[in-house]
Order: sequence, then C-alpha cells, then structure tokens
Amino acid sequence: MAVRIERIQNDIERINKFNATPEKGITRLTFSEQYQGAIGYVTDELKYIGAKISYCPGGNIKASLAGSDDNGPAVMMGSHLDTVMHGGRFDGVVGVVSALEAARIIVEEKIAHRRPIDIVVFAEEEGARFNWGLLGSSIWTGKLDLTRLSAIKDTDGVTYAEAMVRAGFEVSDASLLEPQKLRAMLEVHIEQGAVLEKRGYRIGLVEAIAGIQHLDITIIGRADHAGTTPMDDRSDALQAAARIITAVEEIAQKIGSNTVATIGRIACEPGQANVIPGRVKFSLDVRNPNKAILDSTVAAINQAVNDICGKRHLGFEIIPLDTAPPVSLSNEILDLMVEKTRERHVEPLRMISGAGHDSALLADVTETGMIFVPSKKGRSHCPQEFTRLEDIGLGCELLLSTVVALAASSG
Amino acid sequence: MAVRIERIQNDIERINKFNATPEKGITRLTFSEQYQGAIGYVTDELKYIGAKISYCPGGNIKASLAGSDDNGPAVMMGSHLDTVMHGGRFDGVVGVVSALEAARIIVEEKIAHRRPIDIVVFAEEEGARFNWGLLGSSIWTGKLDLTRLSAIKDTDGVTYAEAMVRAGFEVSDASLLEPQKLRAMLEVHIEQGAVLEKRGYRIGLVEAIAGIQHLDITIIGRADHAGTTPMDDRSDALQAAARIITAVEEIAQKIGSNTVATIGRIACEPGQANVIPGRVKFSLDVRNPNKAILDSTVAAINQAVNDICGKRHLGFEIIPLDTAPPVSLSNEILDLMVEKTRERHVEPLRMISGAGHDSALLADVTETGMIFVPSKKGRSHCPQEFTRLEDIGLGCELLLSTVVALAASSG
Repeated sequence: MAVRIERIQNDIERINKFNATPEKGITRLTFSEQYQGAIGYVTDELKYIGAKISYCPGGNIKASLAGSDDNGPAVMMGSHLDTVMHGGRFDGVVGVVSALEAARIIVEEKIAHRRPIDIVVFAEEEGARFNWGLLGSSIWTGKLDLTRLSAIKDTDGVTYAEAMVRAGFEVSDASLLEPQKLRAMLEVHIEQGAVLEKRGYRIGLVEAIAGIQHLDITIIGRADHAGTTPMDDRSDALQAAARIITAVEEIAQKIGSNTVATIGRIACEPGQANVIPGRVKFSLDVRNPNKAILDSTVAAINQAVNDICGKRHLGFEIIPLDTAPPVSLSNEILDLMVEKTRERHVEPLRMISGAGHDSALLADVTETGMIFVPSKKGRSHCPQEFTRLEDIGLGCELLLSTVVALAASSG
Repeated sequence: MAVRIERIQNDIERINKFNATPEKGITRLTFSEQYQGAIGYVTDELKYIGAKISYCPGGNIKASLAGSDDNGPAVMMGSHLDTVMHGGRFDGVVGVVSALEAARIIVEEKIAHRRPIDIVVFAEEEGARFNWGLLGSSIWTGKLDLTRLSAIKDTDGVTYAEAMVRAGFEVSDASLLEPQKLRAMLEVHIEQGAVLEKRGYRIGLVEAIAGIQHLDITIIGRADHAGTTPMDDRSDALQAAARIITAVEEIAQKIGSNTVATIGRIACEPGQANVIPGRVKFSLDVRNPNKAILDSTVAAINQAVNDICGKRHLGFEIIPLDTAPPVSLSNEILDLMVEKTRERHVEPLRMISGAGHDSALLADVTETGMIFVPSKKGRSHCPQEFTRLEDIGLGCELLLSTVVALAASSG
C-alpha cells in the first residue's frame, strides 16, 4: 500500500500549470479557465480509475469509488484547488492530490472496501474570487442558503450562480450532505505555520480548528497641526491606537491557550506627516479553538479600547465583522490516525489549526479528521510556499491507511 | 491711526473670490489663474495709493512707498496669498491685507516716514503646487539657487521657471534681498494653533520659529499567517511600531521645552487583516525652537527605535528627510511690539511658532518680527479656519504702529 511519490509530484506540476499568473506565484480563481483546467485534469485522472464524477451543490465536485456495500455511508477525502492571488503550489493542492493518489492505490491494489470512497474538491475555499471563504462547503453543508449565490459577485459583477452555470453546475440542486450518508471526512493540508518544522515533526494531527472573530476598530480624536499643537493639548488617535495594539499583544500572551490576536491593517486620517491623526482605523483578528476563551479575549480587548480611549477622552467604534466558531474534530479519527502514524514509526504532533478549512464545516456533518504536513518556514499564500515531497507522500500514506480502515470497518 | 475694519473685511472677501474650489474651502495655487487674480486685486489697491510695484526674484511681489530718505534701508511687511488645497480664508491672506491696510493708513494719514516701506507678497509659501514650501522667499534670500527653478515641477510637469515667466516675472533676475537695504521684516499671521484662544490672548508675539526634522521610519519584521503563527513566534513589525509610537510621545513630553513630535502617517505591508505585518512604515515630524533640543529629541527617538527593534530582533531603517533649522526672531522688534501692544491695553503672549513661515528665512537677512492672531479652535489648512475680524484689526494696528516706529526712527 505504498503511494508513488513521482506520481504525486507529477500531479502537483500538472495542476500548477493551470495558473493565471505564471510570472508571480499561482493564481487559480474558482471557476476561472485555469480552475476548470485543473478540475479537468483531476477528474480525468479519477475517471481513468473508474470513479464516477458528480457535480454537487455549491460548485463542489465529487468522484465516487463504489464499495461492496454501496448503500452504506461513504468515506470522503479531499480539499480544494482554488488559490489566493499569487499564492503557492501546495495550499489545497496537497489535499486533492493525496486523495487522488490514495484512490489510485485503492483501485490498482484492489483494496477491498465495504463503504463507498468519495474524492471531493471544494470550490471557493479561499474566497479570492468572490470574497467569501469556504463558500462551496458552506452551501453543501447548508450553512449558506442556495439563494445567496445570485447575490454574491466577483469584482467583475459576475454572480457565483452565473459562474457555476458556466462551469457546468446546476444551481438549483439543493441536496445537502447528510450525516447518515457519510462515515467520515479526511483532509490532508499544509500547516501554513512553522510549528511542525520548528518542533521537528513531519505530521500534525488536528484536534480543533480555531474560531475566528474579525473586528474593525476606529479611534476618533481630533486632527490638528503637528507644529502648533502642544503635546498636552492633543487628541491624537494614533497614540491611543498604539496603546491598544500593545494591549492586544499583552492580552493574547496573558490568556495563552493558543490565543492569537493580530492587527494586520492600520490607517490614519488625514494621513499626512504634518497633521496629528484625527482618526485611526485598524483591523483585529482574534482566534482560539475554545469559544469561551475566544469570547473573553475579544471582551478583554474591547475593555482595553474603552479604558485607553476613556483615559485620553477619545471616541471609538468597534464593529464586529465575520466570525467563525471553533470546531473540535473527531477524537475517534484522531486516535485512529495517531495509531496509523505510529505504525510508520513516526510520532505525530496533536495540534490546533489556526487557519480555517472546509473540514471545519464538514465536522458538523460527520466524523472529521485533518492531517497537516510541514510548511517550510511557515510560509503560505505566497510563491515561497513549500512542502517537501516526502512529507506529502507520508501524509498521503496516512490518509490512505486511515480511509481504508474507515471504509472497511463495520463501525 | 485707526485701521478700518470694514476695508480689511472687504479685502479678505475680494481675495477669497479667487478660488479654484468654491465648493470646498479655498484653493489658490501659486501662479494659477486664481492666484494671479488675487495678486491683481492687491497690486491694484497698492497702485491706487501710489505704491510702486516690482516683480522680484522667486516670483515674489513688492510694492514700495518711498520714504523721505529714499536711500535708507526699507521696512518690509507682508505674507503670502497661495493656499493649500481646500484651505482656509485667513492663512497668508491676513498678513497681506494687514500690510495693505497699514499702507493705506500711512498714505491717507500722510504719516511721515524716513525709510521706504515695502509691502511684499511671497510666492509658493505652502508648497501646494510645486511641493516645495517657502519657495519664493528661499530664492529671494539666496537659500535656493535660481537654476533650481527649471527643475522644480508641478504635477502637470510645468516648471516653476515656466510658471514664473507666464506670470510676468523675469527668471534671470538674481538680485537677492540684502541686509544693508533692509531695516526690518514684519509679518502678521494666524496662529494655526489653539494656544492664544485657550489662554485668552488676542495677540501672540513670536520669539522663535521651531526647527523641523522630518523622518521616515520603517520597521522590518516577517509577514506570517495570523492564524497559524503563535504569539511567541512572531516578528510583528506593527507591535514594535506601537511601542515606538508610545515612546515618541513619552520622549517629547519628558523633554518638554516646546518639543512636539508627531506620527501622522502609518502603513503595514502586506496590509491584510489576516496577515501579521512584515513591514511597517511611518512618518515622524519633530519640532523645537532650539537646535540642540531638536537634535537630542531626534537622537532619543532613534535610540528608542534601536532599543525596541533590538529587543524584538527586528530590522529597521530611519531615513532623515527635509529639515529646517530653528530661527530666533529679533529681540529688538519683539520688545518694540510688546510696548506697542500694551499701549493698546492689550497683553501679548510671547510664544513659539510651531509652523514654518517666510519670516524664518527673512530673519537671516534682517531684524524680523511676527504677530500671531488667534485661530478658532486652532483649525487651519481647512475650510473651518477662522479668525475674528476684530483680532485681525488689532494685529493690523499693531503692525502699523510698529512699521511706522521702525520707518521713522533713526536707528
């Protein structure tokens, strides 16, 4: 049951030839010509081994290998093929090619499985075209209503529904993923962080996916002349923002427990060197795998904003934006994967995913497991994104043995 | 010797009819159609009272009232008529109309003066068209070489030299302002700050004009995923910048002595909510009327950048941009103006100008004095800019009596 690394390498190369920005990284937006090309390559490979291709709600694609008991719930595996603008060669692709190679081995080696095995490609995971991440899986799991697809548009004004139809999907198909028809979901993905590399692990097994709260915070002071306004007569919005940014780091460090909090964007108004900032607007991204800790972190930051602005007699506005609840993955599958990893004389790291994944939505429907492979220097969403082929191969073997175990078992 | 306030009001209204942006504030860029209109109005008024108009190097305009001893050094007064984009109705205009009204009174009341009295309008004080403040006075005082005028361009690519020629100036005239031909320079200007208003003064007498050092500071960290990078494994450029911004305020407050330091502009790279800032660039504007204190403030901030980035293992770049040395104005004229103010039963406030003015350059050539009148709420460079007419009248009277004293005296 050894996977063929040179075949995985070839798959990755072939998929990444479908790229709208060959001069800088990989850009493969959902339903674009490049995306349809990559989907075509993968579905052709799957048809070749006898899988049955279905076009599913939300623009997702499923390839099924029939099991000996074809009425039983299926074991699903896969990931996504869309990328961010100027992204890397591995994010999403690793999970799709791992599923493809695992399926090939199952067919070639005629590995018996009672349950159907489904290879799935989720659409618009990144949200780079329609500014809505996990869109395909949101529709398919019923988190987002089908009617919304006529309102969600790309920057050219093309709706998701229109793009789906052009890509050959039927928009009105509202059949959702059903718990009773699924045994499990498995996804291999690059870590997109540097924890595995730094700690010397080749495999990470995800216990939970962090919840995310995005906020926009605006501090309201008074714009004054930088030369004629004494220091003690200023209502400098940036000076307050600097204290808040400092507090955000201190709060996240103090709370610990995998809490991360980031200010990635900041701008002053009017934004001139010789004018005291009258307004400062910045983003806040807070994540934690535990809902209560996530909420209390956000509350502590809100309190800090209130205290700092109060002390300085400044106004503020805190606007909560999108939020994703934390998700615990399947303990049953985690234990199985730990066992399968150790069978290969490899010790896995149980870890938290700080990034969101389609599997987070699938976890509400079925037993779900995620396998992380190391990202070099933690780089992701950029041309420097890199994962060693032997680590992808190991992730694929682990996926294969786990899927086979789940598809064969009577549980 | 009472000035006529309704005439000043009319002058201000007439000048501000020459405005490229009547829908939002006042925009009168140097040598524009609107600027030439305002110059035409002022020179017509001055010609009417018998002043002799000269087109001077650098695009400045001088109107001379002959004295009884016409070979003696002249007493000069004036300000500028150009504005920032969408500026106010008083910045610059107040000094020009005060000089105009003072000249009218001198002629109408046949006030004897031995020395010539010159009314001057400096060009491109704001730098809003050619991105070079105090340009007219820089040329006329020899701080900037005439040949540079063929290289300095506006956003349409028109050089300052070309614009001067179209406005009727001779570009090759290199005659500089000479100390032996000047007795004094006087300028009335709005404060552009809120010190006079807050402290209840109607007149500020400027002891010194603050020196300015502009810098660009870049903090170099590492851009990482906001979800997958633990707090203790980040090289977050913004977290360091926040400590530096805090330190800038603390340093300026600790040093005191009229020190002001401002960060008016900041940006993160890549600038996305879900990416830890890899680079943060911000502006720094430091001002002090004392060169040694200005330098030591900048040095203390440099040290703070070094310490904070060192502690966090981040790189940084500090690029010094333009600098203007502090300028002490004439004690002789200051004392004279204090006396003239008190004669009106008004107590003046001796103060520092945090903003730059043409008078700062004139102070190198001749005894120079500046009179500030209050700005409502300190607002300036915006449509809300406002100074009460009675305060402008008081400033004008003070200008008049000081000019007359200086032009009549044998000193």
